[in-house]
Amino acid sequence: MDLTSFITSFTTSFVIFIVLVLLFTWLSRKPANSVVYYPNPISRGLDPFENRKRSMNPVGWIREAFVASEADVIAASGVDAAVYLVFLSTVLGILVFSGVLLLPALLPVAGTDDALKLANQNSKTAGNYSELEKLAMGNVQAKSTRLWAFMLGVYWVSIVTYYILWRSYKHVSNLRATAKSSPEPKPEDFAILVRDVPSRPSDQSLKDRVDSYFRRLHPDTFYRSMVVTNLKKVNKIYNNIEGYKKKLAHAEAVFAESKTTGNPEGARPTMRTGLLGLVGSKVDTINHCNEKIKELILKLEAEQKITLQDKQERAALVFFNNRAAAASAAQTILAQMVDTWMVSEAPEPRAVIWPNLSMRLYMRQIRQAIVYTLVFLTVVFYMIPIAFISAFTTLDNLEKLAPFLKKVVEQPEIKTVLEAYLPQIVLIVFLALLPAFLMFLSKSEGIPSESHAVRAAAGKYFYFIVFNVFLGVTISGTLWSSLKRIINHPGDLITLLATSLPGNATFFLTFVALKFFVGYGLELSRLVPLIIFHLKKKFLCKTEEEIKEAWAPGDLGFATRVPSDMLIVTIVLCYSVIAPLIIPFGAIYFGLGWLVAKNQVLRVYVPSYESNGRMWPHMHTRILAALIIYQITMVGFMIIKKFVYAPFLFLLIPISFVYAAITKNRFYKSFAATPLEVAARELKEVPNMEAIYAAYIPPCLKTEKLEDVELFEDAQSHATSRTTSF
Amino acid sequence: MDLTSFITSFTTSFVIFIVLVLLFTWLSRKPANSVVYYPNPISRGLDPFENRKRSMNPVGWIREAFVASEADVIAASGVDAAVYLVFLSTVLGILVFSGVLLLPALLPVAGTDDALKLANQNSKTAGNYSELEKLAMGNVQAKSTRLWAFMLGVYWVSIVTYYILWRSYKHVSNLRATAKSSPEPKPEDFAILVRDVPSRPSDQSLKDRVDSYFRRLHPDTFYRSMVVTNLKKVNKIYNNIEGYKKKLAHAEAVFAESKTTGNPEGARPTMRTGLLGLVGSKVDTINHCNEKIKELILKLEAEQKITLQDKQERAALVFFNNRAAAASAAQTILAQMVDTWMVSEAPEPRAVIWPNLSMRLYMRQIRQAIVYTLVFLTVVFYMIPIAFISAFTTLDNLEKLAPFLKKVVEQPEIKTVLEAYLPQIVLIVFLALLPAFLMFLSKSEGIPSESHAVRAAAGKYFYFIVFNVFLGVTISGTLWSSLKRIINHPGDLITLLATSLPGNATFFLTFVALKFFVGYGLELSRLVPLIIFHLKKKFLCKTEEEIKEAWAPGDLGFATRVPSDMLIVTIVLCYSVIAPLIIPFGAIYFGLGWLVAKNQVLRVYVPSYESNGRMWPHMHTRILAALIIYQITMVGFMIIKKFVYAPFLFLLIPISFVYAAITKNRFYKSFAATPLEVAARELKEVPNMEAIYAAYIPPCLKTEKLEDVELFEDAQSHATSRTTSF
Repeated sequence: MDLTSFITSFTTSFVIFIVLVLLFTWLSRKPANSVVYYPNPISRGLDPFENRKRSMNPVGWIREAFVASEADVIAASGVDAAVYLVFLSTVLGILVFSGVLLLPALLPVAGTDDALKLANQNSKTAGNYSELEKLAMGNVQAKSTRLWAFMLGVYWVSIVTYYILWRSYKHVSNLRATAKSSPEPKPEDFAILVRDVPSRPSDQSLKDRVDSYFRRLHPDTFYRSMVVTNLKKVNKIYNNIEGYKKKLAHAEAVFAESKTTGNPEGARPTMRTGLLGLVGSKVDTINHCNEKIKELILKLEAEQKITLQDKQERAALVFFNNRAAAASAAQTILAQMVDTWMVSEAPEPRAVIWPNLSMRLYMRQIRQAIVYTLVFLTVVFYMIPIAFISAFTTLDNLEKLAPFLKKVVEQPEIKTVLEAYLPQIVLIVFLALLPAFLMFLSKSEGIPSESHAVRAAAGKYFYFIVFNVFLGVTISGTLWSSLKRIINHPGDLITLLATSLPGNATFFLTFVALKFFVGYGLELSRLVPLIIFHLKKKFLCKTEEEIKEAWAPGDLGFATRVPSDMLIVTIVLCYSVIAPLIIPFGAIYFGLGWLVAKNQVLRVYVPSYESNGRMWPHMHTRILAALIIYQITMVGFMIIKKFVYAPFLFLLIPISFVYAAITKNRFYKSFAATPLEVAARELKEVPNMEAIYAAYIPPCLKTEKLEDVELFEDAQSHATSRTTSF
Repeated sequence: MDLTSFITSFTTSFVIFIVLVLLFTWLSRKPANSVVYYPNPISRGLDPFENRKRSMNPVGWIREAFVASEADVIAASGVDAAVYLVFLSTVLGILVFSGVLLLPALLPVAGTDDALKLANQNSKTAGNYSELEKLAMGNVQAKSTRLWAFMLGVYWVSIVTYYILWRSYKHVSNLRATAKSSPEPKPEDFAILVRDVPSRPSDQSLKDRVDSYFRRLHPDTFYRSMVVTNLKKVNKIYNNIEGYKKKLAHAEAVFAESKTTGNPEGARPTMRTGLLGLVGSKVDTINHCNEKIKELILKLEAEQKITLQDKQERAALVFFNNRAAAASAAQTILAQMVDTWMVSEAPEPRAVIWPNLSMRLYMRQIRQAIVYTLVFLTVVFYMIPIAFISAFTTLDNLEKLAPFLKKVVEQPEIKTVLEAYLPQIVLIVFLALLPAFLMFLSKSEGIPSESHAVRAAAGKYFYFIVFNVFLGVTISGTLWSSLKRIINHPGDLITLLATSLPGNATFFLTFVALKFFVGYGLELSRLVPLIIFHLKKKFLCKTEEEIKEAWAPGDLGFATRVPSDMLIVTIVLCYSVIAPLIIPFGAIYFGLGWLVAKNQVLRVYVPSYESNGRMWPHMHTRILAALIIYQITMVGFMIIKKFVYAPFLFLLIPISFVYAAITKNRFYKSFAATPLEVAARELKEVPNMEAIYAAYIPPCLKTEKLEDVELFEDAQSHATSRTTSF
């Protein structure tokens, strides 16, 4: 790619970005759109326009993002969002500090050499190198003393990374500690999760067993236990009721509306009772729903009783009357046979994955082994099913399967386009479904909380994306053949990467630029959610509830967002010295990213749970992993350049591992468990243990009539006494 | 080696064994030797001859060993000794169960085939295979269906091992839990070790800091802390005092004796004050010692004060007022920066390695890395320094260095012997010093307790012995060249072992027989300690104290004993199917070993500390490792025998790893930490916290006049107040 085409592509992206930002400024000022652009403050009960001035200023959102403090971010979107911003600013810091030294130092060093020119003269062909390539390390001659500058550059980048990562880890650790020791009591700080409860002896219910066990071992601090039950059936009934309730509200709204237009008595909405409302007898919707709800509530109550009594499973949440006791209990092994009574910190109530809690240890391990194998196969061989499906989804096959398409498909223009793009479409569909698939796999491992599942899925996605996009593009040809080569000759890995990297510098430059301009433009302008919201509002929504659902912004989506950013980290670090021009692009990516993300977490996204920055150690480790990939690549590159001092560079690799070990020693454990120092800090008030306990009652077990804990509790006790009376 | 020479060697060993056992029976009956043969009951204040009958019966000790229950063993020598016996009986059980099926099944299958005969006919040389070799797997023809029997044999041995190991692990886990939850309070159950205490702020002493920290985090259960101090100087003075005290007692005894013989006034013993008592002015020993002791006690008291005040180091023992609190505290991280305030279970008072306690985390990790490297080099390259030293210690060099030896060395007979044996002598000296060297290395790692250091040293010795003796003998030629081959072609490992094993079967058969007959004979008869004791008693000892020291039996010496046994386990397992005849020898080794060890732990050895079977997981893992080596070898062997069903055998290897993971999941953690279930069991009485605290005061810090805790405590408090007043 030569300079002009690069500039064209860059300019196009930039124009798109500007257009999208202007659109955003214009659209976000309209009050009708406020629920799309300010859902976060609205859902917190704030008026997004209380300060009118800011919506007048076209760059007001930028100023606001800069002005907002970390505490504001935490108030709006929680610690996880703040940690994500720390992640972005950390990488930004690394790139800015690296660039400040590398750009003025390395560009002239590379630009004034002429390896490419010489190579060109030798090959006698036309000058097929661009100006951009002249500014990269490829233009430095082999064995040149100029390579010292590049080697020192690698040291500089590494040292900057170590330093900034250390500061960030410390900062995040403090954020987490502050959140964990906040004077506001949070339910998850008072509970632990107990799994693999031994099967009950015949004369005792599981609940009794758990109670007596903890009462004996934690006599002073045990408050109460909640045995996990199988919620499958009761949940189904509950969801049915909720569905009918929505239908009822909708029908009532439609009925009320029909009264205002023309017919003063209104037209009672009707529905069919059969499949999908398409078949079956026609009934009055309001009456039907009311009947159904009444009927189901009786069924629900019966099922709730059965669930609490007879569907107790071998896991429990155990509550303690103070935070320090819970923190300590979650870290102390209970049983002599340590595969029973396994304790861990309780997940946040909103994040609990109930069906996974009672999964047994060995089942979890078997599932984990299977999932890891599947992920490995997906990462390495993902092209195989796609090739298979592509081969299957030819036009001929499509016509056979769906003859009605024939007419459309047979048109020559459409045919050409389809034939050209069908494989790509399959690939895009696969890639779009991948995060959901990885999330499904992660949940199948038996992970007890959503936030943990997100971390696991993000890890899997990171491997996929780094292996397939970064290594896949870099080492042209299929990854599989390269892998085979690496397995046979592990030493080749170093030079393999090093020889392939420089050729792709411009490609990745464009890739990064496209990603931030178009990606962030779309993110900021929220065009898709805006259109969907307005369509839904116009044609589907009748009740307030339905409108609220239509604009619900969801959360930040760490599972895909973080791995995508990590890909850019890997790319930019690896090219930072080879083609230093990529650094400003990386800096813009993370700078702009930080700005947009800060705007979005302050105004848009609503977190669905809080893990208090538990994701940071993963981010930290992966940035370090990217750094090590970079160092290995550079060693290989120096070897190719026949630089005799390359071994000096090698030293950095063990240093990085030692650094990783030290940060792990110093910080990691306090993310995996709560330090007593943190848990023991004083609370504002005596915690309301009833409320803490109630926070964990699953909605489908809450009684419909009055949302009363006593009833739930009675039922659990009743279950106990009933079972004991046998 | 043919059958007759094997039988000769075997018979000789057996005769030696019988002679030694008879010697033992005869010598142990003499009351004068009772302190050599019964030191354990004597040191526990029991009369070894209270039941006279047993010393009359020549096989009385065997009956007694069989009759004694596990509880007797624990009472006499603690849980560690009982666990060692469990280890021996576990291996015995594995071998007996394996042998019961393998011997009658495999010997005929091998004996009736004739691969060796055929091979012999082909090579046209005289029949150079022995009857023994005919009974081994080498006599089965390639591709023969008879190999099925051997393959099933491997399965049988593996299943027997899994089953018996599982039972033993469970049994040991119960032993440990019983000991840990015994109603007798033990000091180590109430204490935790805190390392990496952050450096003190200027206005607080470390002691105050530790106290206030724990008082805040464990307000209800914290009892008191003991800050570790640098004992180097005070210990030196204390040892000096002890030395003079001994000298004084000795001199007084000599003086008293001199009064009874001839001169009624007696001759006051004299000594020289200079180096080693060889130079310097002659003084009256009794007066001199008394003066010195008086002087040193003053110095000691001053130094004790200084130590307690100014030599506090960044580690502490923290005491809790109940066992469950201590168990829980040892497992709960305290600080947000988890490389500070690191907690672990406290070592037993007798086993504490004081200088290691205050070693910082990163120092420990650096040292560990260095030690592991050194051990790796020692295991792989140990021949190099020996070759070097051997080359250096030629006779010529020896004569140059020590000219006075010339006359002796120049005599032709001596010269021949020396020239032949000098390299071997160097090797023997090296091997004799090796355990001490490995122990030194283990202690250098910063391990806080003797028992842990013993485990670490045993591990290192195990690697050395398995690599060098087992692999070294098996794969003839130097290990290093084989290693190089393995590194280049990892796949060769399997066939390398498999091709080399069968040839050495008879060598190892003899090796095992020699080990048990001569080794156990010497062990039982205690000839060496007996002679040393009588010599010392006759010529050196004057006081009761000195005599007691002369017969002090020491402990079992797990650091070398267990690895030696493990070598036999590895050998016997590996040959169990290849040459099933080794099984009875192995069974005798462990059966006899169990008998002798039981006798020794009941009557002889006095444990110097108690780790409550903490060594078992290591034993378990190493038996499993031996099993896996065996399975890999057998896969290789089957491949060599061109048995097409060999892959079925391969299945066993992952099964072993899964088994290892399951046992670890189920049992291991309760060895690494105390489960709350165990620690929370009730005590017989309210523990005497003063005594528990006092148990940890190092002897050199106990005041000389009255052994009073108050003084020590006062001094520590004084230190506190003094420092705070600055």
